Amino acid sequence: MILPRPVSFTRGDGEISFDGTVHVERVTGPAEGYRLSVTPDGVRVWASDDAGEFYARQTVRQLSGPAAFRSVAPVRVALPVCEVEDHPRFAWRGVMLDVARHFLPKHDLLRYVDLLAVHKLNVLHLHLTDDQGWRFESLKFPRLHEIGGWRPDSRFGDRRSGGMAGRPHGGYYTQDDLREVVAYAALRHITVVPEIDVPGHSQAAIAAYPELGVSGGEVWTDWGINPNVLKADESTVDFYRQVFDEVLDVFPGEVVGLGGDEAEAGDGRFVRRIAQYLRQRGRRPFGWDEVLGVGPLPSRTVIASWRGEDAGLTALERGHDVVMCPEKHVYLDYRQSDHPAEPIPVGTVTTLEDVYRYEPAAADRVLGAQANLWTEHLDSPRRLDYAAFPRLSAFAEVVWSPVARDEAEFLTRLAEHHLPRLDALGVEYRPLDGPRPWQALPGVPGFPR
Amino acid sequence: MILPRPVSFTRGDGEISFDGTVHVERVTGPAEGYRLSVTPDGVRVWASDDAGEFYARQTVRQLSGPAAFRSVAPVRVALPVCEVEDHPRFAWRGVMLDVARHFLPKHDLLRYVDLLAVHKLNVLHLHLTDDQGWRFESLKFPRLHEIGGWRPDSRFGDRRSGGMAGRPHGGYYTQDDLREVVAYAALRHITVVPEIDVPGHSQAAIAAYPELGVSGGEVWTDWGINPNVLKADESTVDFYRQVFDEVLDVFPGEVVGLGGDEAEAGDGRFVRRIAQYLRQRGRRPFGWDEVLGVGPLPSRTVIASWRGEDAGLTALERGHDVVMCPEKHVYLDYRQSDHPAEPIPVGTVTTLEDVYRYEPAAADRVLGAQANLWTEHLDSPRRLDYAAFPRLSAFAEVVWSPVARDEAEFLTRLAEHHLPRLDALGVEYRPLDGPRPWQALPGVPGFPR
Repeated sequence: MILPRPVSFTRGDGEISFDGTVHVERVTGPAEGYRLSVTPDGVRVWASDDAGEFYARQTVRQLSGPAAFRSVAPVRVALPVCEVEDHPRFAWRGVMLDVARHFLPKHDLLRYVDLLAVHKLNVLHLHLTDDQGWRFESLKFPRLHEIGGWRPDSRFGDRRSGGMAGRPHGGYYTQDDLREVVAYAALRHITVVPEIDVPGHSQAAIAAYPELGVSGGEVWTDWGINPNVLKADESTVDFYRQVFDEVLDVFPGEVVGLGGDEAEAGDGRFVRRIAQYLRQRGRRPFGWDEVLGVGPLPSRTVIASWRGEDAGLTALERGHDVVMCPEKHVYLDYRQSDHPAEPIPVGTVTTLEDVYRYEPAAADRVLGAQANLWTEHLDSPRRLDYAAFPRLSAFAEVVWSPVARDEAEFLTRLAEHHLPRLDALGVEYRPLDGPRPWQALPGVPGFPR
Repeated sequence: MILPRPVSFTRGDGEISFDGTVHVERVTGPAEGYRLSVTPDGVRVWASDDAGEFYARQTVRQLSGPAAFRSVAPVRVALPVCEVEDHPRFAWRGVMLDVARHFLPKHDLLRYVDLLAVHKLNVLHLHLTDDQGWRFESLKFPRLHEIGGWRPDSRFGDRRSGGMAGRPHGGYYTQDDLREVVAYAALRHITVVPEIDVPGHSQAAIAAYPELGVSGGEVWTDWGINPNVLKADESTVDFYRQVFDEVLDVFPGEVVGLGGDEAEAGDGRFVRRIAQYLRQRGRRPFGWDEVLGVGPLPSRTVIASWRGEDAGLTALERGHDVVMCPEKHVYLDYRQSDHPAEPIPVGTVTTLEDVYRYEPAAADRVLGAQANLWTEHLDSPRRLDYAAFPRLSAFAEVVWSPVARDEAEFLTRLAEHHLPRLDALGVEYRPLDGPRPWQALPGVPGFPR
């Protein structure tokens, strides 16, 4: 009944009445791991560390039934007598949220932190800037969020045939907002990894400070790859060093994203110099796999292998740490089925089962994996729920649970135990048999591959 | 610095360091009232009842500074040395949310409960059904939420000249969801008043069960007054008795709404019989002021006077309890200014100052007042935030604070102390000088009166 599936779960006879009291001890064991025992004598946890204790409590919550996931949880519940032994398979169990294409208000972002915690995921990679919007408040360069923080309209559907949404879109997080998100996530053992994307995907910044760009232009209202990129001159590099100074001030985590993807005319030096600067400031640069092409990168750079897994293997050979996130397996904005009512179907078909079957290459050598949620076509929290769930539940099991997978058992456990939890949480997931009528978007064109 | 303004607030010298410890005593005093004393000896509260204690804690939170409104609040803050004496002016301090025209997901609804609590408001009137959608799960008549719970499209802007949004819209609350909202609200001393609107505004129900209607038809995709109404025959009355049975099972509050507004061809008997049924079940019927025209109503019926206040005065003469909510003063979907960028400007201009100046007629005889948020043109939580705030903050002061008002002082207190709290809460209110560029909706037609 637990999801992600623990290392072992042995059910005993009967149930106990549980009032929330858990006896916790620290023991030596695998990082983030725990043992849990539910007997008529009570609930005991042996945890390796704070994270292990936190995950044990998440498991107890799952054992308590769906009502435990409501904002007013029952005071006393029935817990099955059982023994659980558990620890995660990967250290990096991530989700990327693109809050640049569509802004996710702070309270919705905090809700996603909660949803990650329920799934024992521990990295929230925030894609904070893109051609279509800049979401990070800059005290030094306020035009970045004031001008770059909004656009007058957005493509509604695929760029090749979609019309326009007919409304402006914008928003940004204050630095205090993001400090709050970092603190809230830390309490749930989740690290927030910020990303400021350079030198491509920078049109919003260029709209705010035209001197940064090879060409000028406004915040982009279209999707796709924008040919305009940042200039690779000294003053632009210096500008971004100051932006990253502000970013480092807000995000204490070691790993900091610099993007580096899809910059058709990008000068590799730009990425290298920002990467060197992050290293110099004691952090680990984190880039999409294109950065492998810009020449030697600082040691301890982390590579997100998204165009497949070959880049990740290359990165490993070069001594980098790697997070696998191959688009054909874990891009959760891609269509969930060939169902005719699938809303704005883009990318390749990536079913729940496809995500569940994903097995990271070089599993014993990568940091882990992450699922990516790009939001060109996810323009509200409700659309995000639909795309993310229940596929993210399957992904959580891929990165947490032992490798042996039983798809039929997973689907049964999901339907019988986990979807009711998501219902209680108010997650508007995609039903297993296809979208609800109001989750469809008939007539809004996608571009299925 | 406190909003709504307390009965008295006397600032002493200096500040104390506060770790959250409050000493509370019960004393005899006005309902929902409290006294609060912050001295170097600590924080003491004398409360008349649980609600009074709750409001004292809300005041302490406000004295703690904006960061206390973040999800990870500071452990220790500076509190000004002060004495507060406080109790509300009205017993009914309400907000109506129309979750029928646009569905508000459960977690967003819970967030609104929190926002009401911050403002010491204590009634959440949920308009659960209308022509455009049925949001209450019915176990007996599931087509109500399954069919009535969504529509294929919506007018985007005013009905006279607006185009269509180009997307389906839907959603409903399960009974468990609503029980959760009721329990969550109760912990914050907020009563949830459900409304099932009859015999007009019923097209969603008629689409689900065509035999209920004078004519048939689908869930409405337009705004305005739909001429189709419920049949006044015995079987329809009986159907709705069963629907209300389910409603009463979920909502324990005494007051239960039956709508009764804008039914052009409605048979008054229908309203009377439902009202009698609610009375028979031990509840108090609550209707819009049109119900005064249907003939004698049961004793203890509560009237919402919305087309002005004359109906409220008439209702008082007839011995009914009254909640004032005149559209020209407290309809928060009406445009906030004549600013050219005001999004979808409808209704009369209702500025922040207009709301602040509102003084309910027969103030010593009415239960209180409520602000109404109709959502034809508020199609997302972000749009709702914009319409509701900061006007709802002004309204909170109208219904809580002593009658003497100093507009300049209020505006200063709002800007210096309260808007930073709303910022910390992530409320996307309308800035005092007009909408942010992404809050405007250029080209989407309104219908200013």
